[in-house]
Amino acid sequence: MYSCPNLCDSLIVSVRSSYCGVGWRSSSLFTPLNFAISNGPASSQKQSPKFISAHASASSSDPLLVKAARGEPVNRPPAWMMRQAGRYMAVYRKLAEKYPSFRERSETTDLIVQISLQPWEAFRPDGVIIFSDILTPLPAFGVPFDIEDVRGPVIQSPIRSEEDLKALHPIDLEKLQFVGDSLKILRKEVGEQAAVLGFVGAPWTIATYIVEGGTTRTYLIHGGGQLPPHMWEMWSKPYIDEIVRTVKQKCPQTPLVLYINGNGGFLERMKGTGVDVIGLDWTVDMADGRKRLGSDISIQGNVDPACLFSPLPAITDEIKRVISSAGTKGHILNLGHGVLVGTPEDAVAHFFDVARSFDYDSRVENHAAGEPNLVA
Amino acid sequence: MYSCPNLCDSLIVSVRSSYCGVGWRSSSLFTPLNFAISNGPASSQKQSPKFISAHASASSSDPLLVKAARGEPVNRPPAWMMRQAGRYMAVYRKLAEKYPSFRERSETTDLIVQISLQPWEAFRPDGVIIFSDILTPLPAFGVPFDIEDVRGPVIQSPIRSEEDLKALHPIDLEKLQFVGDSLKILRKEVGEQAAVLGFVGAPWTIATYIVEGGTTRTYLIHGGGQLPPHMWEMWSKPYIDEIVRTVKQKCPQTPLVLYINGNGGFLERMKGTGVDVIGLDWTVDMADGRKRLGSDISIQGNVDPACLFSPLPAITDEIKRVISSAGTKGHILNLGHGVLVGTPEDAVAHFFDVARSFDYDSRVENHAAGEPNLVA
Repeated sequence: MYSCPNLCDSLIVSVRSSYCGVGWRSSSLFTPLNFAISNGPASSQKQSPKFISAHASASSSDPLLVKAARGEPVNRPPAWMMRQAGRYMAVYRKLAEKYPSFRERSETTDLIVQISLQPWEAFRPDGVIIFSDILTPLPAFGVPFDIEDVRGPVIQSPIRSEEDLKALHPIDLEKLQFVGDSLKILRKEVGEQAAVLGFVGAPWTIATYIVEGGTTRTYLIHGGGQLPPHMWEMWSKPYIDEIVRTVKQKCPQTPLVLYINGNGGFLERMKGTGVDVIGLDWTVDMADGRKRLGSDISIQGNVDPACLFSPLPAITDEIKRVISSAGTKGHILNLGHGVLVGTPEDAVAHFFDVARSFDYDSRVENHAAGEPNLVA
Repeated sequence: MYSCPNLCDSLIVSVRSSYCGVGWRSSSLFTPLNFAISNGPASSQKQSPKFISAHASASSSDPLLVKAARGEPVNRPPAWMMRQAGRYMAVYRKLAEKYPSFRERSETTDLIVQISLQPWEAFRPDGVIIFSDILTPLPAFGVPFDIEDVRGPVIQSPIRSEEDLKALHPIDLEKLQFVGDSLKILRKEVGEQAAVLGFVGAPWTIATYIVEGGTTRTYLIHGGGQLPPHMWEMWSKPYIDEIVRTVKQKCPQTPLVLYINGNGGFLERMKGTGVDVIGLDWTVDMADGRKRLGSDISIQGNVDPACLFSPLPAITDEIKRVISSAGTKGHILNLGHGVLVGTPEDAVAHFFDVARSFDYDSRVENHAAGEPNLVA
């Protein structure tokens, strides 16, 4: 059906051209499997594969997020938020009034850059993720779609028969030029102050959308719901493995993040893909997640997105709890899922303020005074 | 806010009157926590607490499901399905045409019994669960509601302020008489051939509905979404613990099942409530669940509900896989969530046929020949 290698190529080309990183993110309402490749090191912004693979030259000037993704020493956890650009921001809503088509906003370089930078300008996160959608690559291999405000994504001609498969063709990367262009510009804009993240849906998740044709709840539950672990190992993991293998070969410096929504039964399997970072949703306790995953992999997460509706001091407490549970090595602070529509912007600002003001060293002193959770 | 002891009282009274067991089930779209008490043993159908607690007299004639719930030897896994009565059945849809009000169907003894017995008559499951809803007790403590076909549950006056709390009052059990009456009739109807199960939402889940006022997606995500584990321990577990403690004291023979949707990060905590059976959803591999929970507790689950849309031989394979992974001790075969609307009835019939024809002994022979997963 949907050919994974095509998707890989598109990603790898992106990585090759050093748009500072490319990533995957996949999330259907019920089965989300989610990938993100944070930016490669600043030193990998040239096109020589040799240079990219030069380990020694990679570390000192790299953004904090990249270091944490690799498990290198950092003095605080870097922070960004899934879905940090979008409807909860007034500047975005204003822009969306002017450009009411989601596809226009997510497929026009100027708009992508502008939207991606909105949270950067407002909150200075440690990672800037490209404004995009997991469905964005679809038209480039023969599946047109639209995103309607109320209904969400709508695929006019879902692929449900062998006959339908004929509509698919190898991915035409020229049709996705705006992705690479935007990443390049973002890389320049944020310099070494932040990581630039790309993302893409995992093949299985994209396939569920293509077959289901949208977010009809019935379809999602019946045909595209979250896979049981043994089915995930059969239908999803091999293609993720292939993506990881290929990216690691071509761009060994580029850290990869894998996120699955509802991942409490999947952690160990996720680690088996070889990614650098596992994104925890908010239903897994961070201390449990660290224990189950061990200290030889980085963890991203996992503040409950609903927490951002709390008073600011409660948000502070929750962030500190998560940071303490994650340990000082290899933790990227994030939400356990995307920012919710309606989230107060001052709560988001506060989230990043707290992360920025955190200092592992002072906490390590606390640890010495009896906080056994702090260091994993 | 919502007073847990009131709910407990209602349940305990039900158990006291030996409606063959009462249960809890709680499930909001995103945070479901789910409880089910299977029926007490046949021998506990009298009102003497002493008799109820008489272990020796409890076992031989008990339904298979009760034995498995207690971890007693059985020759095959008993089977039932969450939401086994309902819209996927043609007889139910026909009855719903005649009685279009959900509240009428779920609050009229004759209709409750008739609907609860529809799957019993069609498929002969090992457990017959009362047709009810987690919102059913609400009007009895001052919160009227309705269930609309499209919108789902609608609570006309959600409880969102201290002022609103005045509407709540201690539960008036007479208003729930139909629950006890129905359970009594069901007990007589199925005799010792099957367990009778009751259910009830956990206090936290019921509270989310009362505050949110319905299944508005926004509200559910923001305020009533699935709790992170540390919040669950604070806001949900203590009240479940209290229910378990009280029921165990009054009716020590009555097995309790706890189900949480999205429970991959909760298994060990669920075990800590002291229930007899943990319900696994389909996102946790059964072998992992058994390993994490140990062999001193029973497990219910966890065939993917979407599996019932597969060809019958694939359903057979999946059932066998789950049974083999669960081990021969303490497994109640069930879906990992409720039966989906649209599920073919012949697939449901097949599910029960396969369960009924299973024989641990013959499988144990296979095990001896090299199936290490079979015995936990």
